[in-house]
Amino acid sequence: MSFTIEFQPTGQRLVAEEALTVLAAARQAGLQLRSDCGGEGTCGKCVVRFIEFPPDLPVRPADERHLSARQLSQGYRLACSAVIDRPTQLFIPPESLPAGQVLQTGTSHKQLSIDPALRQMNLQAKAADLHNLQADFDRIRDLSREEHLTADMDVLRELPDLLRRNAWRVNLIMRGSRLQHVTPQPLSPLAGLAVDVGSTKLACYLLDLENGELLAVIGLPNPQVMFGEDIMARLAYAQKGEREALELHHVLMQSIQQALVELTKQSGLEPIQVAEVCLVGNTAMHHFYLNLPTGGLAVSPFVPVASGAQLTPAPQIGLSGMPGMLAYTPPVIAGFVGSDHLAFLLACGFGEDQRVRLGIDIGTNTEIALQKGERILSVSTASGPAFEGAHIRFGMRAAPGAIEHVHLDGGRFTCEVIGDTPASGICGSGILDALGELRAGGLLNQRGRLDKNHPLVKLDAQGKPYVTLAAGNSEDRPITLSQQDIDQVLLAKGAIRAGIDVLMDALKVSAQEIDEVLIAGAFGSYMLPAQAIRIGMLPEIPLQRIRAVGNAAGLGAQMMLVSQTTRRQAEALAARIEYLELTLYPDFEVFYANGIRA
Amino acid sequence: MSFTIEFQPTGQRLVAEEALTVLAAARQAGLQLRSDCGGEGTCGKCVVRFIEFPPDLPVRPADERHLSARQLSQGYRLACSAVIDRPTQLFIPPESLPAGQVLQTGTSHKQLSIDPALRQMNLQAKAADLHNLQADFDRIRDLSREEHLTADMDVLRELPDLLRRNAWRVNLIMRGSRLQHVTPQPLSPLAGLAVDVGSTKLACYLLDLENGELLAVIGLPNPQVMFGEDIMARLAYAQKGEREALELHHVLMQSIQQALVELTKQSGLEPIQVAEVCLVGNTAMHHFYLNLPTGGLAVSPFVPVASGAQLTPAPQIGLSGMPGMLAYTPPVIAGFVGSDHLAFLLACGFGEDQRVRLGIDIGTNTEIALQKGERILSVSTASGPAFEGAHIRFGMRAAPGAIEHVHLDGGRFTCEVIGDTPASGICGSGILDALGELRAGGLLNQRGRLDKNHPLVKLDAQGKPYVTLAAGNSEDRPITLSQQDIDQVLLAKGAIRAGIDVLMDALKVSAQEIDEVLIAGAFGSYMLPAQAIRIGMLPEIPLQRIRAVGNAAGLGAQMMLVSQTTRRQAEALAARIEYLELTLYPDFEVFYANGIRA
Repeated sequence: MSFTIEFQPTGQRLVAEEALTVLAAARQAGLQLRSDCGGEGTCGKCVVRFIEFPPDLPVRPADERHLSARQLSQGYRLACSAVIDRPTQLFIPPESLPAGQVLQTGTSHKQLSIDPALRQMNLQAKAADLHNLQADFDRIRDLSREEHLTADMDVLRELPDLLRRNAWRVNLIMRGSRLQHVTPQPLSPLAGLAVDVGSTKLACYLLDLENGELLAVIGLPNPQVMFGEDIMARLAYAQKGEREALELHHVLMQSIQQALVELTKQSGLEPIQVAEVCLVGNTAMHHFYLNLPTGGLAVSPFVPVASGAQLTPAPQIGLSGMPGMLAYTPPVIAGFVGSDHLAFLLACGFGEDQRVRLGIDIGTNTEIALQKGERILSVSTASGPAFEGAHIRFGMRAAPGAIEHVHLDGGRFTCEVIGDTPASGICGSGILDALGELRAGGLLNQRGRLDKNHPLVKLDAQGKPYVTLAAGNSEDRPITLSQQDIDQVLLAKGAIRAGIDVLMDALKVSAQEIDEVLIAGAFGSYMLPAQAIRIGMLPEIPLQRIRAVGNAAGLGAQMMLVSQTTRRQAEALAARIEYLELTLYPDFEVFYANGIRA
Repeated sequence: MSFTIEFQPTGQRLVAEEALTVLAAARQAGLQLRSDCGGEGTCGKCVVRFIEFPPDLPVRPADERHLSARQLSQGYRLACSAVIDRPTQLFIPPESLPAGQVLQTGTSHKQLSIDPALRQMNLQAKAADLHNLQADFDRIRDLSREEHLTADMDVLRELPDLLRRNAWRVNLIMRGSRLQHVTPQPLSPLAGLAVDVGSTKLACYLLDLENGELLAVIGLPNPQVMFGEDIMARLAYAQKGEREALELHHVLMQSIQQALVELTKQSGLEPIQVAEVCLVGNTAMHHFYLNLPTGGLAVSPFVPVASGAQLTPAPQIGLSGMPGMLAYTPPVIAGFVGSDHLAFLLACGFGEDQRVRLGIDIGTNTEIALQKGERILSVSTASGPAFEGAHIRFGMRAAPGAIEHVHLDGGRFTCEVIGDTPASGICGSGILDALGELRAGGLLNQRGRLDKNHPLVKLDAQGKPYVTLAAGNSEDRPITLSQQDIDQVLLAKGAIRAGIDVLMDALKVSAQEIDEVLIAGAFGSYMLPAQAIRIGMLPEIPLQRIRAVGNAAGLGAQMMLVSQTTRRQAEALAARIEYLELTLYPDFEVFYANGIRA
């Protein structure tokens, strides 16, 4: 038995040999469906539509929980529950595809310090003869005046033939006193790849190593979302066995390798011109890209295998460019404070002066660092994925169709939607706005409860209150925000505020003393500081001191790619950052209880 | 079509699918037949006997050149010429098997300096908890007090599980500040493998790295003899293509790996306890074991790829022991002066004082070094394989059945034979003796011609003179020495003497000034210094100053295996040795012409 499954609108096909879920089929066909819960049937994000289907197409309990009767009658089902065993055509709504998200790779412009680990040297040797019997490599070494030059076997194996084919001319690509590669001609440019490996997106930058010029940029979804939207789901998947752990490593590295090839193509280069890689990511990503065991990160006390900077032969982690290519991976700080946070702080100049500065990278885990004088303290707080749209009925990422701003004016909601499209959901900044407007409009009290007596607050079939923000993109799917959604958001903002307050308490800093607040990531760019302060996510800090820095981690990765000095600076910065375990902080519960107040 | 070929007395079998030579069949069956000429039909060493054969078993020209009519009628043929295309039983005479040779691995006892590259450290860490969140590796690093400890990915991958399985106890195996491997318990002993990779034999030593104790020794034939007895034949084979070059690398490394496994078995260890390897060999062997291109060594001006010491991950050259095992390969001096010569000079204390010393390693190429004061000069001279038994009608290695000493007394020859067996040939020291006796007895004149009028000198069918030394092991196979054999030997000893004379001339040293002559290798152990002087191979040096040192190269390899100080000493020695190209030396032809006089 074999049958064909076709996915629209992309047209991808899979020939299957046995029954499987739509989610599994999509994975095998190379399609990444949203699957925040890892395929458990609880998140309701992996909606697909059967294009032609029998009247008795099964309806599973998970379908009933997440889909309306009308959707069910139109052939909508959850991909994780629906099992197919015959030729099938499926339609994937854009909301179910993380690939549709708006990827942000832009960074503010910071002057790169150029001090690459690699340099080129072009030499013309004399041919060997009976009067000049030096070994090939020794001849090159002496000519280069690098007395202690060494070379890997692979380079030694190439050298003799290259010298003789190329009339004893050779271009050396050297890392310090190590000969990494030899080419007939100088490479122009000599390129390097910097990647900010986020849990949901990969921001990939191709740079000229010798002058720091940005040659090309690509943003890709992190293909690991196939195995669970959030990191804990992926860590849990990796613990199932070696095969599963390797799978997570491999899909990630395949995407990075594809990015490398695509970036070189866009720049008119060959992959062999890519001589070095710099990868940053949170600690789980760090372990995934280095293929380190993640068992210690999956359970308390959440301990990494190793925190230090590494230089790893790229093929060992599934990347190939120039033979001998190494991957530089900067240090991580703790189990939930990764090298992406370090890169962010580095790019923002933490450690370079003694100003009071707060750096916040909001995500499922929000990393926060506070600098005061010589000290830099960091925490990680489990803010949950509410701001990324998960665990929120109509939550979605900052993608076309997402409500990014909400205004309550004259008794009705007005929404700003990303892209020229009807609203299909609400992203983090929209949620933040909505919360502020609900509170200001008196629909929400200080304890975070919706006022059931307010005319804009409706009750659902179970008698639970909700508000309708916008009509949505189909008549039976208005965009609503429920009490449960609001609870999630309050828990998230409370976790962030508690983290900030603990840091301020630990370093005896008042809100007015903070010189600068830097907010990283896509959410930070869409969020309005005033709204964040209004709902109490941030303390009362003068607005002009709050700055969104976009993908500063990506900038930090680029800075480390092209400069050894910057790497040493990053390593020194990492050594200075003190990790503070929030749950052990005295009266943390009180900070948290204060934080979640609406 | 498929048919079975069986080799007696070993019983090895091969199922073949198409016609092939016996030599090829033997190789495929894993049998190493002598093949000095590389299967060209010129050396006549690969004699086999067909056990049952048809009356019309073909007789090829090469068979006629090397075998008597009676041998032909008994089914003897040369393995390189005989083609088989049907079920066949073959008998392999011991003389055709290099495996039967006496292998010498014994060394004189020299105190080893113990300073291994690796050391063990056993640690008990504290378990990670919320108050103690260090990364696993960082925890171990801090406990080891090795501030700059680093580790390969492979070690980092093993560490977390090992720590948790082993109650946070771990044994570190460190190379300087690099963590090479982790084990639950200290390894006792921590072993290392030293190999003197000779062209014809591999002398393999297993040592305790921590105290230098010799745990086990094995001597194996170099399996590359399948591809040609001498180095030039193998180099020529390697130039046929990448496959052939790899084949030479692989058969060699397979044998060394087998030796590693066998040595550990003999010592009651596991291969995983072997933490380091040291390999020495002539420059061709050096390139073969490192899998470096040998093109430069195959043609004039005979230039190596690289001469320096290397530390290579063992799996890259086909060796496996402890994960992370490295192979140390000391420097080579020139295209025909390898690291085995360096190891020999090192073991004999060259460079440690300023005495006048001459070191000679006799083989197909004879390497000679002369030390005077601060200077050490070395040459390589193409002495040919005569002393190893090749190109000599009844020549053989120092194996059971070989005549090792010859006396001419009262008008007849008396021979001493190795082992309790009739003579089947004559080895290098026997040839040396014979030459001296022929000259002293007046059978040979100064120009190296046999006196056809002497009663002991016979003429063959072509009228060419020869002498019969012994009856041999079968009635129609007496052991003879022909004019042609004598020519070969004179060329060989002339080449050696010319090398010595050039060195003495270059450093202005007279024979009486030489404090010590050290002769390496099996031939050196069997040879009598007086005979060597009598035939002019050595200058007139007082006999008590001449010393056979056996496999000093093997001792040197062991010394470097267990001591980093010794490695640095060897590298400094290599840098001091000046290679002198004989063919460019003024009036070299005159030195050579003088050298070959009988």
